[in-house]
Amino acid sequence: MLFRQLFDRESSTYTYLIADEQTHEAALVDPVVENVDKDLKLIHELDLTLLFCLETHIHADHITGTGEIRDRTGCKGLVPENANTNCASGFVEHGQILKVGSVIIEAIETHGHTDSHMAYLVEGDRVLTGDALLIRGCGRTDFQGGSAKTLYDHITQRLFTLSDDTLVYPAHDYRGQTVSTIGEEKRWNRRFIDADSAPSQLRERKDFIELMNKLDLPDPTRIMEAVPANEQCGRQKLTA
Amino acid sequence: MLFRQLFDRESSTYTYLIADEQTHEAALVDPVVENVDKDLKLIHELDLTLLFCLETHIHADHITGTGEIRDRTGCKGLVPENANTNCASGFVEHGQILKVGSVIIEAIETHGHTDSHMAYLVEGDRVLTGDALLIRGCGRTDFQGGSAKTLYDHITQRLFTLSDDTLVYPAHDYRGQTVSTIGEEKRWNRRFIDADSAPSQLRERKDFIELMNKLDLPDPTRIMEAVPANEQCGRQKLTA
Repeated sequence: MLFRQLFDRESSTYTYLIADEQTHEAALVDPVVENVDKDLKLIHELDLTLLFCLETHIHADHITGTGEIRDRTGCKGLVPENANTNCASGFVEHGQILKVGSVIIEAIETHGHTDSHMAYLVEGDRVLTGDALLIRGCGRTDFQGGSAKTLYDHITQRLFTLSDDTLVYPAHDYRGQTVSTIGEEKRWNRRFIDADSAPSQLRERKDFIELMNKLDLPDPTRIMEAVPANEQCGRQKLTA
Repeated sequence: MLFRQLFDRESSTYTYLIADEQTHEAALVDPVVENVDKDLKLIHELDLTLLFCLETHIHADHITGTGEIRDRTGCKGLVPENANTNCASGFVEHGQILKVGSVIIEAIETHGHTDSHMAYLVEGDRVLTGDALLIRGCGRTDFQGGSAKTLYDHITQRLFTLSDDTLVYPAHDYRGQTVSTIGEEKRWNRRFIDADSAPSQLRERKDFIELMNKLDLPDPTRIMEAVPANEQCGRQKLTA
């Protein structure tokens, strides 16, 4: 398998390129519209054929590159089930297996940051966690149908139950971190863990909900532009 | 082996954390002084013991964290042979093998960006290329005793001779790329390759030298501060 983590500095988004090195088939997860030329150039240089772009969710902080990439390559654009869009090529269900050549990608429903969100477990040993689980953090839950209760349940029951050495590749990082593991997050992620107690303990759900409800974060700068654009697969760009 | 790529957004520097997961011994390559707290926190969270910090060269664009980390942890600070510093704990020679538990790191002399520069081949399958070979680029050769001729010779004779699937981890990237391979760079790195010819061909040394001499780049913003500070292992910080 070829696995590439690509960084968009403007929105601190990680896009992932996954390919089967034998068949040269590939998928892009969470592409960013400003990087489409760069992503397609890399795909060309690596002699890859893009089968699909895959979204973890409808983003609020950047515009997806999926629409433009689909127009230019003919690949599919796949989004999580129930995502608020009518332009996707297909919807991905919880537990669904996607194949990129012989590479196996399993969708894991991880709502709560938004009301429609998937993590993707790649080859069983690394999980693309989108904006659900971040490195030492998690996605906010105060817009787009977010729910702290659901985020807690899905992360603790569906991600923290993966083996401790599963690599965690988030959709964002703002502090220069590129990867973590489930074991590390179960020990040190202070949104979910009371790391000051020894041994460190999982917070109760009510404490997590209280913590999330107190965050009082400003809206993402581009939310008014990004959400409607992403509901159109990134094809509708509002102009000033 | 535990292998972590850490990003300093200000200087676009990659720092690497390498550890033996059995013995919990670790090394940091090219730490950045502003990130020392963050790096030491991660080392603590991962239950690691830092044996040494290792520099690829005396940097001109950021101040190394080695001096401060050595003060706080008692680890060693290692620099390439002939680096212009008298504060290092030790000097690394071409071909020298460093061990981090059972993890093998081999030093490869790759001068030319500066007159004292090492790449580090980790476990034979990934090479930390410092500022010698960058992803689709290379380090500039117009200060600190740089030499386009030497850079060409060392990269083509010592890095491009590694197996094509060797992963390339540079000390910087400015375009959101995190990793490449020797095979990719031998095909697509336009500093060294005439990628427009088919099959793509290695440029002649004289053409590379001419290309490098024409770059006419401005000095790095922090060069007047960073170079003298790094010659003191990052302990001498000039104030405005």
